[in-house]
Order: sequence, then C-alpha cells, then structure tokens
Amino acid sequence: MSDADIIHNTIKRLALFASCDDRTISRFCEQSTLLSIDKGQNLFVHEEKATRFFVIVKGWVKLFRETLDGTQAIIDILPENNVFGETSIFQDDIYDYSAEAIETAQLISIPLYLLKSEIDTNSKLTTALLYEMAKTRRQQDRELEHKNIQNAPQRIGCFLLRLSPQKMGEPLKIHLPYDKNLVAARLGMQPETFSRALTKLKQETGLEIKGSTVNLDNINTLVGFSCAACSSEFPCKDLKDKKTCC
Amino acid sequence: MSDADIIHNTIKRLALFASCDDRTISRFCEQSTLLSIDKGQNLFVHEEKATRFFVIVKGWVKLFRETLDGTQAIIDILPENNVFGETSIFQDDIYDYSAEAIETAQLISIPLYLLKSEIDTNSKLTTALLYEMAKTRRQQDRELEHKNIQNAPQRIGCFLLRLSPQKMGEPLKIHLPYDKNLVAARLGMQPETFSRALTKLKQETGLEIKGSTVNLDNINTLVGFSCAACSSEFPCKDLKDKKTCC
Repeated sequence: MSDADIIHNTIKRLALFASCDDRTISRFCEQSTLLSIDKGQNLFVHEEKATRFFVIVKGWVKLFRETLDGTQAIIDILPENNVFGETSIFQDDIYDYSAEAIETAQLISIPLYLLKSEIDTNSKLTTALLYEMAKTRRQQDRELEHKNIQNAPQRIGCFLLRLSPQKMGEPLKIHLPYDKNLVAARLGMQPETFSRALTKLKQETGLEIKGSTVNLDNINTLVGFSCAACSSEFPCKDLKDKKTCC
Repeated sequence: MSDADIIHNTIKRLALFASCDDRTISRFCEQSTLLSIDKGQNLFVHEEKATRFFVIVKGWVKLFRETLDGTQAIIDILPENNVFGETSIFQDDIYDYSAEAIETAQLISIPLYLLKSEIDTNSKLTTALLYEMAKTRRQQDRELEHKNIQNAPQRIGCFLLRLSPQKMGEPLKIHLPYDKNLVAARLGMQPETFSRALTKLKQETGLEIKGSTVNLDNINTLVGFSCAACSSEFPCKDLKDKKTCC
C-alpha cells in the first residue's frame, strides 16, 4: 500500500473523523506525512512548542512526564488507531507530555493548524473531538477511582480483564502487549510491588503467567476478584465501542 | 438579590459562557432554577438518567461513585462557580457519578437539552466546553501523575499548596475547606494513612495544624518537599486563571 493509502485508510477509520465529509478528510490527508520511529525515540518532549498531532498506525507509544530528579510518570501507553498531541491546541500549543515509541512504530503526523481551523468552522469534527475528550475523561476517572479503592493485585487483574474478550464463563488466554516492567510502570507500581501483587493475584484467582502469556481456566474468578472493587459492572461498558484497548 | 439576578450573575461569570452573547445567556437563565440542598442530600445518583446540569453558587459538592460493597471513591469536591453533570450529554444522558452536598449548598439547575442544542449550532460555546474539558483532563493527568510518583505526605503538601496564594518566600496561613476525613477521602487515603502522612509532613516542613488552620513560617520548605516530585514547576500554572481551587 502507498503512504497516501495508509494515511487515508487510517484517518478515515478514526472516530474523530467519522462524521467528516470526503473533502475534509482529503484536506487532512494531503497535509499529513507517514513516519517511522525506532524503539526509544522521542517524538516530542513535554512543554515543547506543538505544531503537529499524531495517529499511531503500528506499534506502541508511551506518553509520560518527568520530574526534575528524573522520575518518570507514565500517563498512557497507546496502541494503533490512537490519536495523541491534539489537545495541545487547548493550552497555548504546548505539548502537555513527552511521547516515545516503546517499539518500532509507524505514525501519521498531521499539522495542528488544520485541526484548529476546522474547530472554528466544522461543528461535526468539534463534536467528535468533544466525545473523544469525554471518553478520555471517563478513562481517567476510572483510573483515579481504581487507584483509590483497588489494591495492587486487583489493579493488575483489571488491566488483564481489559485486554480480554470480556465474556463471563470463558477461559482467558492473552498476551501481555509489552514487557512486565512497562506494565508495572503503566499501573504506577514499583517493580517489587508489581511482583508481589502478581504473586497474590495468581494465588487468589488461579491465573498462570508464562513469559508474556496469561492463562486462566475461567475468567469468572478474576472478575470476582477485581470487579468487586469497581463502581462499574463487568463487562466494561467503555470497551464496547473500542477496537483496541488499555 | 433576586433569584433571577443570582442566576444571571453566576452564569455570566463562568468560563463556559464567557464568549456567549446576551441572547444566549438569557435563554439559559430563563430556563434555569435556583435551589438549595442540605448537607448530605443527593442531587443525583450514578447511572441515573440525566436531564439537568448544575452550577454551584454557594457551598461544596462531592462527586463520587460507589462499588457494590458500598466503598466510596471520591472523584472531586467542588467549590462555588464550578459546573458539573454537563458531560453526561456525551454518554447517553446518564450521570457518570453521584453528587451530594457536603454542606448546605445553593445551586443553579439548568436543562441539559439547552446545552445540547447549543452544541450543534453555537461554535463559541462548543469551543469553551472543549477548553473546560481540556482543563479537567489536565487536572486528572496531574492527579494520576501524583498518585504514581508522590508519596502520601507529598500529596497532602500539594493539596495545601494549591489552596495557598502560591508566593515563594511568604508565610502560609490557610483554612482547610472541609474536614480532615474528607480531605483524606479526596486524596484517596485511609484516615490512618492520612494521619501518619500528616505527622511526617509536619516533621519535614515545620507545618503546624490547629483545628482547621494551617500555618507555616515560610512556604519554601513545603514547595521543596512536595514539588520535587512533580513534573510541573511552582507556582502551578493551571491555577493562574482559577479563582477557586482544589
């Protein structure tokens, strides 16, 4: 597939552009570029001037911030078909976090001024952006809630359930999307805490982990363990219209 | 002041309506009502059908969710001039949390359909809503970051700094906006954890707390202690355009 085809097919599929007409989509596509970055490479740095936003075509991208002493706080780790950097238009065109590929990644780079100009005139795109922001807000709400009321093993269980097909009574077999240290960092846990919590989770639910493969005979024990400390019911409503998760 | 005057003055001052013309503001005001609720009274319950959103005129309102076993997770505790319930329009008109007054409160109740109809046609109001949502997202980002990298005493320090006038070298004298148990719950801490963390914070910074009054000779020790584990610099940028906080 040509670069132009990849750009067009990816952008057209995004919820953000779902109600845009072909002319608008073409305008975005024509001014977008496809780029590849290596594992560990930065796309932009927190507080840098923002001129472009990005869509992930392949790979995973880590969004994070660092304190003065170099401690890193991971905000999110995003898979393909996710958009990032777009909300910098609401804070003086400054990126609110750093972005780095955690494996070789392919991305679409789109000028921010295009999004800005559409927001003033295109109510459909603006409404779609509002819906996307509301979705992020709910995700953050959930994470904050879980940090307040779930213990560490329950939070790991929730992370795994959100990667699963979410069907009661079924066995669970999934692959961790990235290495365990990153899962720990994504969940805001020290590696030792993560390791202890994982041991406890295995004891409580019968979960088995070999390398990056997670197995469980029946998902129900994991649901019973983690979702008891959540204000939402299983299956997670917010995953219904989501093709990829975490 | 008449109810109509209170409603008009409050709505006109909100960032959400700042760029609306007088006709739009009048349309909202005419269909809004002023109401008082007692301490502990619920305004609405999580997952209830949403028909109205609210602005706080006086008092404090707690937004929260509960798990099946009754554990409560506090999402936010809002002071006057804050809007809540409005984002339910982005999730099938269902409230995403419960709302309860933590002291006698006066509120403006506004029909959600008015906001919905404006979003389709009024780009200024829609853009203002986008900015407000981006602000909430940054606040949640910060809270998630702090939960990941700040310890409990640092998080209490940060909570106090955000209530202060934020001037380096100055003494600190503030009143806690609500009781200590609620501060603990807002920060997602068990009362015992909060109590231990507060003792540690006093030792590290020289802070004194008598009843609800917090005193410190020089704010710098608190800034050095809490802001070292934050990716933003002191003073907090997001408070610059905020009249009320936390």
